[in-house]
Amino acid sequence: MNFKLILHIIAYILVIEATLMLPGTLISLALDETEALHGFVLTIGLVLALAALLFVLTLKVKRERFFARDGLLTTGLTWIIMSALGALPFYFSGEIPSYVDAMFETVSGFTTTGSSILPSVEAMSKGLLFWRSFTHWVGGMGVLVFLMAIVQLGGKNKGFTLHILRAESPGPAVGKMVPRMKQTAAILYWIYVGLTVVNIIFLLIGGMPLFDSLCTAFGTAGTGGFGVKNDSMAGYSPYLQNVTTFFMLAFSVNFSIYYMIILKKFKEAYRDEEFRLFLLMVVIATGLLAWNVRSFYGSMEETIRHAAFTVGTVMSTTGFATTDFDLWPSFSKAIILFLMICGACAGSTGGGMKQVRFLLLWRILRRNIHKSLHPSEVTSVRVNGRVIDEQILVNTQAYLIAYMIIVLGSFLVVSLDGYSLETNISAVLATFNNIGPGLAAVGPTCNFAAYSNISKIVMILDMLAGRLEIFPILILFSKSTWKKAR
Amino acid sequence: MNFKLILHIIAYILVIEATLMLPGTLISLALDETEALHGFVLTIGLVLALAALLFVLTLKVKRERFFARDGLLTTGLTWIIMSALGALPFYFSGEIPSYVDAMFETVSGFTTTGSSILPSVEAMSKGLLFWRSFTHWVGGMGVLVFLMAIVQLGGKNKGFTLHILRAESPGPAVGKMVPRMKQTAAILYWIYVGLTVVNIIFLLIGGMPLFDSLCTAFGTAGTGGFGVKNDSMAGYSPYLQNVTTFFMLAFSVNFSIYYMIILKKFKEAYRDEEFRLFLLMVVIATGLLAWNVRSFYGSMEETIRHAAFTVGTVMSTTGFATTDFDLWPSFSKAIILFLMICGACAGSTGGGMKQVRFLLLWRILRRNIHKSLHPSEVTSVRVNGRVIDEQILVNTQAYLIAYMIIVLGSFLVVSLDGYSLETNISAVLATFNNIGPGLAAVGPTCNFAAYSNISKIVMILDMLAGRLEIFPILILFSKSTWKKAR
Repeated sequence: MNFKLILHIIAYILVIEATLMLPGTLISLALDETEALHGFVLTIGLVLALAALLFVLTLKVKRERFFARDGLLTTGLTWIIMSALGALPFYFSGEIPSYVDAMFETVSGFTTTGSSILPSVEAMSKGLLFWRSFTHWVGGMGVLVFLMAIVQLGGKNKGFTLHILRAESPGPAVGKMVPRMKQTAAILYWIYVGLTVVNIIFLLIGGMPLFDSLCTAFGTAGTGGFGVKNDSMAGYSPYLQNVTTFFMLAFSVNFSIYYMIILKKFKEAYRDEEFRLFLLMVVIATGLLAWNVRSFYGSMEETIRHAAFTVGTVMSTTGFATTDFDLWPSFSKAIILFLMICGACAGSTGGGMKQVRFLLLWRILRRNIHKSLHPSEVTSVRVNGRVIDEQILVNTQAYLIAYMIIVLGSFLVVSLDGYSLETNISAVLATFNNIGPGLAAVGPTCNFAAYSNISKIVMILDMLAGRLEIFPILILFSKSTWKKAR
Repeated sequence: MNFKLILHIIAYILVIEATLMLPGTLISLALDETEALHGFVLTIGLVLALAALLFVLTLKVKRERFFARDGLLTTGLTWIIMSALGALPFYFSGEIPSYVDAMFETVSGFTTTGSSILPSVEAMSKGLLFWRSFTHWVGGMGVLVFLMAIVQLGGKNKGFTLHILRAESPGPAVGKMVPRMKQTAAILYWIYVGLTVVNIIFLLIGGMPLFDSLCTAFGTAGTGGFGVKNDSMAGYSPYLQNVTTFFMLAFSVNFSIYYMIILKKFKEAYRDEEFRLFLLMVVIATGLLAWNVRSFYGSMEETIRHAAFTVGTVMSTTGFATTDFDLWPSFSKAIILFLMICGACAGSTGGGMKQVRFLLLWRILRRNIHKSLHPSEVTSVRVNGRVIDEQILVNTQAYLIAYMIIVLGSFLVVSLDGYSLETNISAVLATFNNIGPGLAAVGPTCNFAAYSNISKIVMILDMLAGRLEIFPILILFSKSTWKKAR
């Protein structure tokens, strides 16, 4: 492991984090929120001091040795340190008195989960509410991707940027845009910024106040789900709800689709198998939910609006709510659990297992059945007509194994708190898949505050493992990561 | 596909099935149970007529072409036909008026699941109760294994017996005893018969009536769980409960362990990694459950007895009950769900994912993490010091994918009936893992009668897929199985 270079990168990240806290600080300053301002200033000072220390410690850094494992470790450590420090304004201001709770809220923010321990968001200061929603926007795209887009850190090492982007980006592989990493990262960021601005404009047109529009758009773009109202999105107009449904889904699509559209490769975009599977699931799930809850609402418009919003919020793993879907029938809840697991497309800001993984697993299974019928035939797994590398198939299956073990293990620990099976299973799935609310005692109208600190720490790790797709967090627990190189 | 040879084998199986119905018939005859006797005689006549027809149709059978896929198809078809016909005595006698219910009960018997649609078993005739428990004993070891042990059907085809045993035996591979298949099958059957007899003797010593002892031992040996009392095992003495705990666990151990013990290879038996993992899980789970439910029972003896019995019944996937564990706290229920998924050892009569698969998946994951840290090193997965063939690893992962997809899919369909999430999840897991009772509305004191026919058919397929480890049932739904050979 090239620990020195890793610490050097983290020093950069800390400077970025301090900068990202400025908007919230300014809001608190403008609105005379003394405690919040105190929390911000103290934190920024601490973060910058730590950054300076790390820069001094890593003056003579070697940029040559940097492998895939270093990329994983950089990502894992960056996210944990960023969250630990990002939690401090909440804690120092006294608005979240328990540090574990503050950490839970911040990890939930950066990982774009949206699970909250706050009983009333409206009681928070505006500055901290802004920071809370802003963490979604930062975490959605990934802060290391941002760093790679603006700074050339790797020296002559060609794999450097690749290893870090691979570890931080969601989905089985970075995809087709590999050759010019730095430009790619910048293009993705511009698409992200552009879509967010369009989202804000549409919200403002619908009459939403500027502060609400910014925070809602951050929550939508990062597919996070932190809101600024206690009833999430239920109080906003149907127009604002529909706009949000549209943008939640838009941010769940692989950004390379937008890149193709920019390059006018419409056919290629339309033929993307993951994109088509995603659209198909959206339509089918909305239809089934609307049919299943048709007796719950007054009009067809209302029924379809809530069904579509719920599909959008669950598949994109955002976590906003317009209605309490915990009151819906079992079949609807089963569909919601199913969508929770599948999640969004790879290469988007959404979470979950990702549609393309589902596609891959399905095709791996089909190949295996075919092979047991025709043992002598050699067959490959294809997506979009291209043969998928066997190593990616192996990794996808390892992902499934880790997924199962982590979900089962977390479920066991969380059950110690004594809540119902439905609460516990949905809490683990909602945090691990970065969705936000679960069912029953952690449903859309409730929060995660009642869980013990041990359960909260497990769910903090689940959120991180879910956002970073398991391995950057898992290797933190591997002995050989911390062993001196032989 | 060699359909002719497959039908020829099924003809033999039907003769065996008719013979197996004789004890129940005799009991009904002796006790003057007119309706039951009527049901048995009609069924036996029908089964023998069908067998005769199949023998005539397959007089000129070619024994040469028989591949792995034929083995899978033989097994899948045999089990479905056996169940469809085995359900007839219940239906013809009128004791189970719905044919889907009768089929559910019979599949639950042969697959050694033990889920029941009967509100009161004590209301049944003795002859049918005996047949019901006897299906467990027949299904536990597998009827094709029995056929292979007594008849030489494959002609000069060397793969014949192997392909069938592989498809019917639980666990990732038949194991070390491959060379002399016919003898091996016979030895396994003798171990099975011997252990069952010892079990019956221990029950008789404890004062259990002969009829109850036979049925209970059949349910234990097959790890099925059909009882003859409405309160399952709760009414029997602590001695009888403890004997049953011991034998449920004994039948969950890989039978090759007993084979080693017979050959006096004690060291090898003791060092078997799956066996050790199994024992470790039994001890830890019993300890955790006993600790978690310590306030529920009067004495330490009672607490440990119920905890150990529950661990035994769930890990062996038997399904007997001495206590209503649905009333236990969430943590206990979480452990029970976890044990349900892991299940027994491969090569035993128990169900579930099998301990060795769990071990394999864990090691595949560890190898993958190691590989992401040290990409250039080539590593293999070992069990008991032996390198496991990569094809077995691929199959194990395909099993996990199929497991996940089937459980999720079944859960979705079953949820249409509107029962609670806990009921539906545990119902699917309990049937697919061949356990028997689940939690909540399908808990130990309840039954599966309330589900719709569609849900019951889904669970029938789940039980079969669980017992035969998915692929023999899955290929029945594959187009290329039914295509004419090119």
